[in-house]
Amino acid sequence: MRAHNLALVLRQVAAAHRPPSRADVAASTGLTRATVSALVDDLVGGGLLAEVGPAPRAGAGRPAVGLVLHAYGPAGLGLEINVDYLAGCVVDLTGTVRHRAVLHVDQRPLSPDTVLAAVADLGAQLRTEAAAAGRVVAGAALAVPGLVSGTGLIHRAPNLAWHDVDAAGTLAGGPLGDLPVTIDNEANLAALAELHADGQGLDSFVYVSGEIGIGAGIVLHRDLFRGARGWSGELGHVCVRPDGPRCRCGALGCLEQYAGQEALLRDLPAGEAGLARLRADDELARHRLPSAGTSLGVALAGVVNMLDVDTVVLGGIFGPLAPWLAPSVEAELSRRVLTSAWSPMTVRASALGPAAAAVGAAGAVVRDILAEPAEWMRT
Amino acid sequence: MRAHNLALVLRQVAAAHRPPSRADVAASTGLTRATVSALVDDLVGGGLLAEVGPAPRAGAGRPAVGLVLHAYGPAGLGLEINVDYLAGCVVDLTGTVRHRAVLHVDQRPLSPDTVLAAVADLGAQLRTEAAAAGRVVAGAALAVPGLVSGTGLIHRAPNLAWHDVDAAGTLAGGPLGDLPVTIDNEANLAALAELHADGQGLDSFVYVSGEIGIGAGIVLHRDLFRGARGWSGELGHVCVRPDGPRCRCGALGCLEQYAGQEALLRDLPAGEAGLARLRADDELARHRLPSAGTSLGVALAGVVNMLDVDTVVLGGIFGPLAPWLAPSVEAELSRRVLTSAWSPMTVRASALGPAAAAVGAAGAVVRDILAEPAEWMRT
Repeated sequence: MRAHNLALVLRQVAAAHRPPSRADVAASTGLTRATVSALVDDLVGGGLLAEVGPAPRAGAGRPAVGLVLHAYGPAGLGLEINVDYLAGCVVDLTGTVRHRAVLHVDQRPLSPDTVLAAVADLGAQLRTEAAAAGRVVAGAALAVPGLVSGTGLIHRAPNLAWHDVDAAGTLAGGPLGDLPVTIDNEANLAALAELHADGQGLDSFVYVSGEIGIGAGIVLHRDLFRGARGWSGELGHVCVRPDGPRCRCGALGCLEQYAGQEALLRDLPAGEAGLARLRADDELARHRLPSAGTSLGVALAGVVNMLDVDTVVLGGIFGPLAPWLAPSVEAELSRRVLTSAWSPMTVRASALGPAAAAVGAAGAVVRDILAEPAEWMRT
Repeated sequence: MRAHNLALVLRQVAAAHRPPSRADVAASTGLTRATVSALVDDLVGGGLLAEVGPAPRAGAGRPAVGLVLHAYGPAGLGLEINVDYLAGCVVDLTGTVRHRAVLHVDQRPLSPDTVLAAVADLGAQLRTEAAAAGRVVAGAALAVPGLVSGTGLIHRAPNLAWHDVDAAGTLAGGPLGDLPVTIDNEANLAALAELHADGQGLDSFVYVSGEIGIGAGIVLHRDLFRGARGWSGELGHVCVRPDGPRCRCGALGCLEQYAGQEALLRDLPAGEAGLARLRADDELARHRLPSAGTSLGVALAGVVNMLDVDTVVLGGIFGPLAPWLAPSVEAELSRRVLTSAWSPMTVRASALGPAAAAVGAAGAVVRDILAEPAEWMRT
């Protein structure tokens, strides 16, 4: 009961538009003021809540102290392995990104052990930076571009040519020491970041994570949809043309072959250099992005016809390219999605920058603490 | 509490492998024998449970009376409008189909009002048959090949060229009188029929309803997955080739154009006559079904990559054609589904015959009564 009430108080503080007083929390939770005060004392003592000085107020009476999530409370470390970069960030309890790092290195020539060691080093370095700034990292989550089991086994990451990589086992006892690390799919974590960055605006959507590979995170009624076994969202391997070019997964005509980063940048420099060139050269972008958008729209129309969501969020490299991609995505959706006849689809660019999955990973750690503060305070 | 316990007792009786005694029910529910006896008396009085004579038993003591769901208790009426037939059936509380009717008539030249009046007549006739046999129809559900809202509005049924048909309003006060009628998508109801026909074997699957159109009912962890707004499963309009033939929905290259009944039967007699010819002529079937199976497999592979289910059930006309369709469906799935590398897919023919959606509709009515017996007994 106490664990439940601690979480309830934290939720009220997190959801409030301005720092609520203890009396405000009592009123909104229905708990007595004495109970709320005891819970707040515990949460302040546990480093999860901070008190902020009273704002000048009209009227009589002693102005009340306001409560906020503690910006120097436990923080989350988010890490991301992607095909051509590693990324990491530290997010505080309020959801603010405090430290960030990205390493643009093609991971494909490297062994899984080398890549995992490098991302662990990046994490350890961010953890040290956070500690120097007065923040304790409470846990970590790692985003990977592949299909992961609950035990941290990466079954398959086609663009890295990884299969059966025991990521959790490899990380244990490395540079991250005994920090708990969970492992999840990068598009899932990026979709969660999008959901929480947006406040209350989004209900159900497909987040499209455009990188070397293309993944999707599906959110239904503000919950991540994971499919029957946790391996949903492999949008990059939805077929666009059954006799199209061969994909790294082995099949023919997968979406990645038409709209993945390497298809968009053929004959251009790889990575950020090529992407910057596309964004800067409107003529070039108009020449090659709409047809990629059409392929994306064909694949997404099938997804929407099956899953019934009304919003598509273009993320990763697709976010900044949305001005050239979105019109043809929208055209295919309105042509092919049955419900669009009476309920038009929305296509929008992600509100997040690059490495959204790392932000989502760190945010997931922090939200776990807020959801079960008693767990954290016991440690 | 009493309502909850009535349902609990019914569930125990329904799940038992042999008719349980009142003492058995008390033991399995944790309720006292006195409470169980009172509840059972109510359920027997309400016509939901029946008592069956004691089986000869070894040992001393008076043999106990066994409890079963009442085969003459309230029954469900299931109705189905499909593109080239109307169907109906009455299912008793035990899930057994007691009455059945199918009318093979192409519905496309007819107006929605005419079709709805005809299916209501069919329902009224089945209700009369059931009454003559001593069964009271407690409610009805209607399956339609389109996208339906909770209020019984058919937003769109592409193969009937229907849109915005107020089916619930049109049925009200017609030949079905004041019988409550709910309306749902035919593939959803057929998937529910498959789930319950199979006992405990199926957990998560895509049921493919092959008719003139192609629909899908998605079951995840034994629950129907409806998508964000209830309009999931439009498999027939997943794209196979972006520049393929034009579909009735207006888009190009939809699955229905490759694997719908009319594509399978081109140059053959329409309907059951053509299907019977295909099934009887192995050479003909081998000539045209595998390529339809490949298209089905391409579309389903995308669905499975997105939704993560491990079983595909081929239903409707695809069930009896599975010997010729399934191998190419399986080949595409194993080629294209990422998880199939370590977790092979299962493709199987439906356990149900034709008009599975009508059976699913009737079963849904009966399961609603069993889930909330107090509601039924109050009326």
